[in-house]
Amino acid sequence: MNSENFSISEKIVSASYIRQGLQARRSHEQLIRLLLEQGKCPEEGWSESTVELFLNELAVMDSNNFLGNCGVGEREGRVASSLVARRHYRLIHGIGRSGDIAAIQPKAAGSSLLNKLTNSVVLDVLRMAGALRLLDICLYPFRSGLFKSWPSILCAQSESPVVVENLLEGDELRTDLEAVERKIQELGAESVLCVHSTTSCFAPRVPDRLEELSVMCAKYDIPHIVNNAYGVQSSKCMHLIQQGARAGRIDAFVQSLDKNFMVPVGGAIIAGFSEPFIQEISRMYPGRASASPSLDVLITLLTLGANGYKKLLKERKEMYTHLAKEVRKLAEGHGERLLNTTHNPISLAMSLDSLEVRNPDAVTQLGSMMFTRQVSGARVVPLGGEQVIGGHTFRGFMSHSESYPCPYLNVASAIGITHGDVALCMRRLDKCLRSLRKGVGPEEAGPEDTCTEPSLVE
Amino acid sequence: MNSENFSISEKIVSASYIRQGLQARRSHEQLIRLLLEQGKCPEEGWSESTVELFLNELAVMDSNNFLGNCGVGEREGRVASSLVARRHYRLIHGIGRSGDIAAIQPKAAGSSLLNKLTNSVVLDVLRMAGALRLLDICLYPFRSGLFKSWPSILCAQSESPVVVENLLEGDELRTDLEAVERKIQELGAESVLCVHSTTSCFAPRVPDRLEELSVMCAKYDIPHIVNNAYGVQSSKCMHLIQQGARAGRIDAFVQSLDKNFMVPVGGAIIAGFSEPFIQEISRMYPGRASASPSLDVLITLLTLGANGYKKLLKERKEMYTHLAKEVRKLAEGHGERLLNTTHNPISLAMSLDSLEVRNPDAVTQLGSMMFTRQVSGARVVPLGGEQVIGGHTFRGFMSHSESYPCPYLNVASAIGITHGDVALCMRRLDKCLRSLRKGVGPEEAGPEDTCTEPSLVE
Amino acid sequence: MNSENFSISEKIVSASYIRQGLQARRSHEQLIRLLLEQGKCPEEGWSESTVELFLNELAVMDSNNFLGNCGVGEREGRVASSLVARRHYRLIHGIGRSGDIAAIQPKAAGSSLLNKLTNSVVLDVLRMAGALRLLDICLYPFRSGLFKSWPSILCAQSESPVVVENLLEGDELRTDLEAVERKIQELGAESVLCVHSTTSCFAPRVPDRLEELSVMCAKYDIPHIVNNAYGVQSSKCMHLIQQGARAGRIDAFVQSLDKNFMVPVGGAIIAGFSEPFIQEISRMYPGRASASPSLDVLITLLTLGANGYKKLLKERKEMYTHLAKEVRKLAEGHGERLLNTTHNPISLAMSLDSLEVRNPDAVTQLGSMMFTRQVSGARVVPLGGEQVIGGHTFRGFMSHSESYPCPYLNVASAIGITHGDVALCMRRLDKCLRSLRKGVGPEEAGPEDTCTEPSLVE
Amino acid sequence: MNSENFSISEKIVSASYIRQGLQARRSHEQLIRLLLEQGKCPEEGWSESTVELFLNELAVMDSNNFLGNCGVGEREGRVASSLVARRHYRLIHGIGRSGDIAAIQPKAAGSSLLNKLTNSVVLDVLRMAGALRLLDICLYPFRSGLFKSWPSILCAQSESPVVVENLLEGDELRTDLEAVERKIQELGAESVLCVHSTTSCFAPRVPDRLEELSVMCAKYDIPHIVNNAYGVQSSKCMHLIQQGARAGRIDAFVQSLDKNFMVPVGGAIIAGFSEPFIQEISRMYPGRASASPSLDVLITLLTLGANGYKKLLKERKEMYTHLAKEVRKLAEGHGERLLNTTHNPISLAMSLDSLEVRNPDAVTQLGSMMFTRQVSGARVVPLGGEQVIGGHTFRGFMSHSESYPCPYLNVASAIGITHGDVALCMRRLDKCLRSLRKGVGPEEAGPEDTCTEPSLVE
Repeated sequence: MNSENFSISEKIVSASYIRQGLQARRSHEQLIRLLLEQGKCPEEGWSESTVELFLNELAVMDSNNFLGNCGVGEREGRVASSLVARRHYRLIHGIGRSGDIAAIQPKAAGSSLLNKLTNSVVLDVLRMAGALRLLDICLYPFRSGLFKSWPSILCAQSESPVVVENLLEGDELRTDLEAVERKIQELGAESVLCVHSTTSCFAPRVPDRLEELSVMCAKYDIPHIVNNAYGVQSSKCMHLIQQGARAGRIDAFVQSLDKNFMVPVGGAIIAGFSEPFIQEISRMYPGRASASPSLDVLITLLTLGANGYKKLLKERKEMYTHLAKEVRKLAEGHGERLLNTTHNPISLAMSLDSLEVRNPDAVTQLGSMMFTRQVSGARVVPLGGEQVIGGHTFRGFMSHSESYPCPYLNVASAIGITHGDVALCMRRLDKCLRSLRKGVGPEEAGPEDTCTEPSLVE
Repeated sequence: MNSENFSISEKIVSASYIRQGLQARRSHEQLIRLLLEQGKCPEEGWSESTVELFLNELAVMDSNNFLGNCGVGEREGRVASSLVARRHYRLIHGIGRSGDIAAIQPKAAGSSLLNKLTNSVVLDVLRMAGALRLLDICLYPFRSGLFKSWPSILCAQSESPVVVENLLEGDELRTDLEAVERKIQELGAESVLCVHSTTSCFAPRVPDRLEELSVMCAKYDIPHIVNNAYGVQSSKCMHLIQQGARAGRIDAFVQSLDKNFMVPVGGAIIAGFSEPFIQEISRMYPGRASASPSLDVLITLLTLGANGYKKLLKERKEMYTHLAKEVRKLAEGHGERLLNTTHNPISLAMSLDSLEVRNPDAVTQLGSMMFTRQVSGARVVPLGGEQVIGGHTFRGFMSHSESYPCPYLNVASAIGITHGDVALCMRRLDKCLRSLRKGVGPEEAGPEDTCTEPSLVE
Repeated sequence: MNSENFSISEKIVSASYIRQGLQARRSHEQLIRLLLEQGKCPEEGWSESTVELFLNELAVMDSNNFLGNCGVGEREGRVASSLVARRHYRLIHGIGRSGDIAAIQPKAAGSSLLNKLTNSVVLDVLRMAGALRLLDICLYPFRSGLFKSWPSILCAQSESPVVVENLLEGDELRTDLEAVERKIQELGAESVLCVHSTTSCFAPRVPDRLEELSVMCAKYDIPHIVNNAYGVQSSKCMHLIQQGARAGRIDAFVQSLDKNFMVPVGGAIIAGFSEPFIQEISRMYPGRASASPSLDVLITLLTLGANGYKKLLKERKEMYTHLAKEVRKLAEGHGERLLNTTHNPISLAMSLDSLEVRNPDAVTQLGSMMFTRQVSGARVVPLGGEQVIGGHTFRGFMSHSESYPCPYLNVASAIGITHGDVALCMRRLDKCLRSLRKGVGPEEAGPEDTCTEPSLVE
Repeated sequence: MNSENFSISEKIVSASYIRQGLQARRSHEQLIRLLLEQGKCPEEGWSESTVELFLNELAVMDSNNFLGNCGVGEREGRVASSLVARRHYRLIHGIGRSGDIAAIQPKAAGSSLLNKLTNSVVLDVLRMAGALRLLDICLYPFRSGLFKSWPSILCAQSESPVVVENLLEGDELRTDLEAVERKIQELGAESVLCVHSTTSCFAPRVPDRLEELSVMCAKYDIPHIVNNAYGVQSSKCMHLIQQGARAGRIDAFVQSLDKNFMVPVGGAIIAGFSEPFIQEISRMYPGRASASPSLDVLITLLTLGANGYKKLLKERKEMYTHLAKEVRKLAEGHGERLLNTTHNPISLAMSLDSLEVRNPDAVTQLGSMMFTRQVSGARVVPLGGEQVIGGHTFRGFMSHSESYPCPYLNVASAIGITHGDVALCMRRLDKCLRSLRKGVGPEEAGPEDTCTEPSLVE
């Protein structure tokens, strides 16, 4: 309410109480002021009540919510279902306009403000996470096809990218710098569109040698794009990018919103060390876009605050150490070992050698069993590059190397993982390995053996 | 947002759009200003967005939502479940304070404002509905036991009320004025605590003769309380009260929130023509009360607006005429008749004489069958004062008269009833009567005969 | 979805995934089954998703949500505003029926189930909290007037209760057992309606001597009602009741929902050691009641689980010790002392002697200053029985004793209090006491001294 | 609840009421069964309660909501903010999987089901809207850049599309078929990638001659893509597509979700007459996508039902006639005319000749004035191809023809438009034209002349 309405209220309820209410309102306004002025993630998270107050204020500024609006265009932000209107906080017009996703939408001052603020807050958080030199970002409401997670590649004029295989160093699969340079020279630097590297990959693969690749790209004057899919959550990955940009050339790095910020699937951030480059990318989007991913990430970051997000990052790191310890212990109990992939700060791999030896089918069976027992996200990779995800076997899919010396199982310590997740996973994995060693596969295992009601059984 | 924050926003999004947003915000503020200034139900209903904006503003003024609050009392409006907090719009402190339900609660300026405004808006709506002289009301968060729906009675010093039976006039059961006066004289007017009359009753009973009773109460100086349970929806009932208060004495009349305003069960309005009397009643409530019924009724009336509510009243009246026509037609088709109870503006009764004659059990069976077929609210009253509600038979319950000459079935045209309700009810009643005439009772009726999926079958 | 719909879904999405979905659904069903079978608070709290699933299922069973319903009664659970319908989870019909709040409502099987389960879960939790012998409870949707918080009293045939003053024992004000017995004999035991005692009171008052009072009530055959307003949160208070019931006579004890279960204001639990007595009380409620308080408490207890609630109780107890330590430290720094009221497990009092000596107005000024600084719930009690709450001075209000030897300030460790609350309160109290000693009262204090934006300033 | 839980409930609440509740639940299940079996938009819209019940059921099937789930992958559908989780109905995993947006996501059976059903329901609605022969669709969570709204063009090997200007026929700008064929022959049919036509355009442009273009594409064996941006709402546009596909070649047609289905901005439907082609397109999306647009459109279509959607289409058509009548009347009153563009079923244009003559700046001023008066969606197009949208002047933007003979103003009758919109727009336009004729421009107009609070002023 404005000050006039507060004054009138003093005639209805004692003035001293109303004034305290006005003062209380100012506290919220003050938080909003700081956000608008600084465009940064607040140190302390906002209460849900401040967040919703702010979103309601934004919605009021969009033309579809004007009390006196009359719409005679073909796109007026009308909504047929009140369930739908409500879940979007009545922000209906989307963001951007024809030809620029970052442009201001005249029919929607509130959504435009939301868009600008979200980009600004996300930029602040990415810097905080380690990309100190970062200059600009663009939030895309979808995962862009340019930036698919392949091993370090070269995009040449040939139709499909040229993949350069990794080198096996100890247990780790890591960038073969010499091979990359050889390939650039072979293709001719002037015909190379860009080098595409990655920070986010499943062990035993480890992040690319970004610093060296960046220096190489600078030397040959080749654009360099980094797939940082879920790397924001790891200070190591962010540091790699920061170092690459300092020492050489990184044009942009791309990350998923959901993987790093605990929001629903559906958006990506394209970040870069050059403002004009990012502005060009934001103009590549052909029209207005959904405001939904921006809304999710803004709510989340305002609610967490910088401190809340840092706490999540810290806990993730600690859980990585815990998970590594637990996997090592379990592996040793089953005659296996935790692969030594210390350059990968998120994903871990445990060998499945002895399982393979006993029973060639057991490795794929393990995948199915884990799926049935509601362990989600564990990947089983048999010899020869198959992979079992969600109980299904994919042959030759995602094999980073054609000939990794042993089958293995992946687990990851991703943002939001809890001690409970690790404990449950270890317990179920232990049970599965035990029954496989006894020769009881998924088919033979009786119903009493399968976790029909996992939360109650365990 | 306050004007300062709008100014800062102009640096982020084009000033002209932000200014339009500010202007849009003022439209909402303007509606709130009118409400605060006049305390009346707005002519046109508010959009849900204005309603929620306003409720959020109120919540911000309550101490449990102060960003800097620290609570060291035994009652601080803390809420354990965010589902609960949200569903109450974070208005947790309730209304009133020890000793007065209408008092301002120092910890909750917002809830106090809500309480005052709701009472004021409801007062306005009751006047609009016909109680022109109304002076004050008090919204109680429960149905008060004083005001149970009995036939016109006299509360004497005896332990239980003295009930004066109605007279049969034509088909109608109506106040026996002579018997009431006789009873007053017999008990001695000075020992009579109050006369309790009613506007809301099931046909063939009709509203009490309020004008005459009011004059009688004035003459003998006896307080007069009217049970107007669901009478706000009928201009006839409201007119009776208005006339009674004009010509004689009515101290208070009581109505349910849910029955008149389409809100959940749980509140009552005590209305009166003397402010001090109502203030005394509001001080009878022993402590803070739930704000939930006030919240429901305020949301509802702001959303409907005066025009929306008037439209509902008008439609109800038209549906009464429609329902009467349909029941008459159906009754005649089955050798029965619509009882002539024109003084009752809401409830109708149809005789079940010929059904009774064929099969003495059929009347109670009809009640069960209607219940099974998802006709809710229809009452079947057999001879001898039994009643079948919801498939169960209550003997001697609610028999307004010990010896009504025929069994009958009640239906009512209450606020919110639709053509669909009437059509479905008539179709199902027709089917039930047909099968009962064929001698097929509820037990014998095969499953194909019962409406297991009524919405799809019909 | 039922099993048929799961089967059809297998044709759309791979059968193995659908089956896993079905299994997942069963986990929720299993939790619901346990609740229905045992009627107890689940050990572990439910996820919000299970809670909402369950509430939706209940709503589906109420006639107002029947897809094929047609309503022709005067009370059909119609709701005009979708905001209102949604916030009540579409449970509109309330609970109980004419003449019994615990009765099943034929139009609302879901709401009736809600009502029964809530009562059962609350009974379980009260037993868990210490009332082991408890037999039955009744949840009332309002605070009942019978049970107002007075000092230990006797309800006699006289119009108002006879209050028996407390005795000063050390710093504590405590039941004067001899005076109570003298008064009973004086009035004649047969003319005493009941004895009313309390566990919940502000220090320096302490809970009544329940065991001795209970024995006395048994001896004289007098009903005994205990006001346990916010005592469920204290094992000491619950133990007092349990001991009283074991050794003597306690007919019922009454507690507020909001004060003990962190829900909005608006309901009370009447608990007793005799089922018929409680059933009688539940029949005293004259009609259907709001389901809103039941809904709040059920959501809260299912979400917390028994373990969550126990944790809250444990934390409250620890915070009491912490608060006492902090108040003692602060008091000593200002030449005051923490009153020695160890029998009161929730409320604490700190003397304000030296403040009074310097400036007779300072004590009431302190109350105003605390209010302005958003310290809510602190009470200042000057000499002569005044009290300052929310910045206002009430003369003679709530003075448990006419002549307590010193002025004092109350703070309480109530359920949900945090370390932050205590720290903020101590800091602000310290500041206020400092400025009052310097002779700077609330009026003189400049704006820079008042906490206009407490969360940001501190 | 499953049948077991219903049985247990019968011990708590009377069996007959519980059985009625079970029956009521079956009605909802029955609706869901029909949807699953037929994959069609239900005839009658579902109640919000059925919709939410169904969405909750879907959410329960996703692994992030499994009570016993333990997540050890990098993407587990964890959500930091409960506001975010709730607004997505806890459907977090998105839809599709690497390499196919239509693929089933193993971690999310519920979201996968949602995805399949939404596509199926949308396919049904598009057929209902006129594309009878439609074979498959793919819902994209963003507007695809391939399908930008240009005048009929040819995508050749040249970097940018070759635009073929329209012909002026009467007032209409319409496809120049001869010029298109000439251009194809000139470029060589084998080097043409596709022809891109459109149904949705601002008057005085009218939909392309789809039938003739389709025949031409078949003759030259060239793919044909139609931009049907907001054409689903018009039976004429849909008929054009249907005829084109019947007589010649249409490979795909693309439409926005928000423009046709009254949902928030953010999704598009790619529809086609060949299943393999659409499947190929759905595989072009590089990863998992947001489920948010699918969720919005499914909620909307289930709530509306086929009948509700048809009613909206019918009303839109009637409003077109009404709008045309009103614009003609207003135009004639101001010495202008409604342009004769009967082939455009949605957009209308009114000449601004006499305005231009009086004052060359008045035309652009009109745009600003309309914006300030909260008329959204009206476009003003001055001579020379400028355009005023939202108060800003764009030079040379969107000029379909370089030299349209007169300046004009556009209004459209789009889905959801109301009589109120038309009336307000006409009143405000009339006022603006009057003040411009008086020589009062936006700057000179006093505040009393500008609609600061349109809803209250008018």
